[in-house]
Amino acid sequence: MLLNFKTIFWENEKVKILDQTALPAKVVYQTITTTEDMAQAIKSMKVRGAPLIGVAAAYGVALSTTLQKDISYDEFKKRVEKGITMIANTRPTAYNLFAALNRMRTILENENDPRVAKLKLIEEAERIRKEDEKICQKIGENGESLLPDNSKVLTHCNAGALATSGIGTALAPIYLAKEKGKYIEVFASETRPLLQGARLTVWELMANKIPVTLICDSAVGVLLRNRWVDLCIVGADRIASNGDTANKIGTYSIAVLAKENGIPLYVAAPSTTFDKNIESGADIPIEERGEDEITKLPYGATAPQGVRCFNPAFDVTPSKYITAFITDKGILKPPFKQSINRLFS
Amino acid sequence: MLLNFKTIFWENEKVKILDQTALPAKVVYQTITTTEDMAQAIKSMKVRGAPLIGVAAAYGVALSTTLQKDISYDEFKKRVEKGITMIANTRPTAYNLFAALNRMRTILENENDPRVAKLKLIEEAERIRKEDEKICQKIGENGESLLPDNSKVLTHCNAGALATSGIGTALAPIYLAKEKGKYIEVFASETRPLLQGARLTVWELMANKIPVTLICDSAVGVLLRNRWVDLCIVGADRIASNGDTANKIGTYSIAVLAKENGIPLYVAAPSTTFDKNIESGADIPIEERGEDEITKLPYGATAPQGVRCFNPAFDVTPSKYITAFITDKGILKPPFKQSINRLFS
Repeated sequence: MLLNFKTIFWENEKVKILDQTALPAKVVYQTITTTEDMAQAIKSMKVRGAPLIGVAAAYGVALSTTLQKDISYDEFKKRVEKGITMIANTRPTAYNLFAALNRMRTILENENDPRVAKLKLIEEAERIRKEDEKICQKIGENGESLLPDNSKVLTHCNAGALATSGIGTALAPIYLAKEKGKYIEVFASETRPLLQGARLTVWELMANKIPVTLICDSAVGVLLRNRWVDLCIVGADRIASNGDTANKIGTYSIAVLAKENGIPLYVAAPSTTFDKNIESGADIPIEERGEDEITKLPYGATAPQGVRCFNPAFDVTPSKYITAFITDKGILKPPFKQSINRLFS
Repeated sequence: MLLNFKTIFWENEKVKILDQTALPAKVVYQTITTTEDMAQAIKSMKVRGAPLIGVAAAYGVALSTTLQKDISYDEFKKRVEKGITMIANTRPTAYNLFAALNRMRTILENENDPRVAKLKLIEEAERIRKEDEKICQKIGENGESLLPDNSKVLTHCNAGALATSGIGTALAPIYLAKEKGKYIEVFASETRPLLQGARLTVWELMANKIPVTLICDSAVGVLLRNRWVDLCIVGADRIASNGDTANKIGTYSIAVLAKENGIPLYVAAPSTTFDKNIESGADIPIEERGEDEITKLPYGATAPQGVRCFNPAFDVTPSKYITAFITDKGILKPPFKQSINRLFS
């Protein structure tokens, strides 16, 4: 493994998280002891990235079991269910969060003894983290073949190791290509408003000695038009059963611009990001976040006071713009309705 | 006239400029007394926007005439020519700058008496400023008819009053539509890296009570895809004779996304922005600016130290994505080669 940091781990009935809002200036770990604090950490994007949100959600629920002594099953169940609801209300778009909560709920409902249930819930959260690590590895292996030696890749936001508990999704193929001795260069779009591209993707690629060039989101078009990149790989927060993909705001623009210029766009995501209950992108809930993210940089104001803002955190890319999905279960090609359906069967 | 600020004016052989790098926090006027200082003000974008750069360039040359007493014609000519060269080397993309310098050079070459030449050069600079004001008004009148009542307009960067010595180019039709009693809403993209949309467009629209919503550049796609805007109007820094248009980085992306979604894109520009010597966009020089603009916000760092950046200030939008040009001499429709050619004849 190339990377020398952990994004999240369980230790003595507590959870340690790498506080991603402090990057790149500082590497700070925060100890999370309650479900409330985990909900807050997810909301404020101290932990972020769909796969990592899934893991954090499971750990958040696990934390709601840790303080009980001689508790009745009903009380225990009520408390854990409250935890599940609290975490479910943090961020609406990432499907991994709901997939993880569903697994925790199933454990809870199939066990009557609070002490056993507690252990099983913690175990399940640990299992979700370990699975995520393996899924990243698989995505990397499946995607690595799509990267020729000497290729240039555009990525958006951060779907790297920092977005998972493993080597990432969109960046996983790049890490494994490097391990195989291929030379890969990355262009990272800064990803306003929260600059996950500039702060996080650049940080982890530099830490792993992958050459990276930072661009503003508005320069993506020039890059694609001049064919200065060979392909694009992005992550996903939720994928509908027809392949329409919700991902960080700006992904749709990249997809249209890539298609217009004949450059492939790959979406790298765990199979847990696919939501079979959702027909198309129109039904994916899109989170809107606060105006301050646009008007106030960490250090000061960027716009006149009182300006009205529109700050969607995600957009939906219709599947017609997507070349293929790189998943832990293989590469899915069009027609996506069929290839995604096979994923569920 | 709606607006209550001047961007640039000549006063007692000096030039006063509104320092746009201080906006929106402060309205600060700076007195410019030398050609060197004007060159610096253009480079550092204290004055910016293609039409205003043209005016500032002329004033910058005029400043090179103001300190001479009993000077020989040769000395005078050398000095003014040096000023012209100095201003020509500030920013490469805006054609208005070179158009203004050409006019100043013609005056210089047609007059042998330094004292007369001096007066004529100052007069010419004043004339360029006044013409710019009138051109803006004309662009506004020509473009206003394209704005139905209750329309929503997307604009990029700042091609408003702040970019000119009048009521702007892209925003001129909006100001005049408002004067006519139409209700127009604007979406302003923030325009990284220097945030001219957030800092300048939002500021001048709010000052003129035009409803405006600020979005990140990456949210442009969502807006267009959902048809939340009826049309786009942007400015231009240089327009080739086939209609290919250089404008602030990100314009190309907006153009492709608008076309993809069937939304018209208008380029509003003075006829002085059209460069008949340039065949197509491929020949327009594109300025690349410093990495600090991306990595360091006015208040702190946004990316890890040592990151490589790519920071083009402009991009080129092929004319096939442009619905029409709104100019002071009328609206130019495709085929652009013909309609632009008529502009020059």
